[in-house]
Amino acid sequence: MARLPALDPNTVPERRTSIYPEPFRSRMGDRSKRRLGDACGLTRFGVNLVTLGPGGQSALRHWHTLEDEFVYVLSGEVVLVTNDGEQVLRAGMAAGFPAGKADGHHLINRTDRPAVYLEVGDRLVGDEVHYPDIDLFVSADMTFRHKSGEPY
Amino acid sequence: MARLPALDPNTVPERRTSIYPEPFRSRMGDRSKRRLGDACGLTRFGVNLVTLGPGGQSALRHWHTLEDEFVYVLSGEVVLVTNDGEQVLRAGMAAGFPAGKADGHHLINRTDRPAVYLEVGDRLVGDEVHYPDIDLFVSADMTFRHKSGEPY
Repeated sequence: MARLPALDPNTVPERRTSIYPEPFRSRMGDRSKRRLGDACGLTRFGVNLVTLGPGGQSALRHWHTLEDEFVYVLSGEVVLVTNDGEQVLRAGMAAGFPAGKADGHHLINRTDRPAVYLEVGDRLVGDEVHYPDIDLFVSADMTFRHKSGEPY
Repeated sequence: MARLPALDPNTVPERRTSIYPEPFRSRMGDRSKRRLGDACGLTRFGVNLVTLGPGGQSALRHWHTLEDEFVYVLSGEVVLVTNDGEQVLRAGMAAGFPAGKADGHHLINRTDRPAVYLEVGDRLVGDEVHYPDIDLFVSADMTFRHKSGEPY
């Protein structure tokens, strides 16, 4: 049995919730996350072990003003969507999204089997999140808003 | 061919150097790292794909005052050494080392085949690194020093 600081990810609860407002929340489909970094007591960055079932999505296509993000595919395959179009990421491939780069990204599982990846992101007060394709952004006070500024 | 923001880790150069002063540098043995986060343009945290050959070590046993660290084993197995002793981490297992927790850690490959893992750490000015077992520390100005304070 692993004991901290080591961790067997299977002992970390799976979370299937999303904090997006509707109608966006239900678009995520079959997605579960295990918060490995939190389970290890980390606070500076988060590390999630994510499983996307067929049709599942990592997130709405977005970019962060202050936070770097990184993903590493462990099994299965996902489609990475950015301004440049689509590319397939298979097990052993990675992708990184530097803070402030105004190019939205997300991952979609278009196969008929699960895909598993690690996602890493740092945690910074005042970060904003922008969603180029939809009427949504997250302001620096961590509120989901319409592009007009009005809260959801 | 993957294009940024995606990355095939095999296209990232392997680094076999260590910045430790001797006699510590040569203790690391067979260790190579690919700096995936840097290759993706990330600056807030680093993500390295590390291969330890038989006898290789991740680092001298250490802890950071300001930086969180996280590892996820991809293949093979390593021994994690902390104040509590040793435990074996196999593929699919993780470990996390919160900033400021005064419990040194490192990984050793005691098998006869390679072990591969991801390591993540954030980057903060003023971080110190402490090595409980040897006459070494890194001061906030990023200088390797004897415990007396004298630089190496």
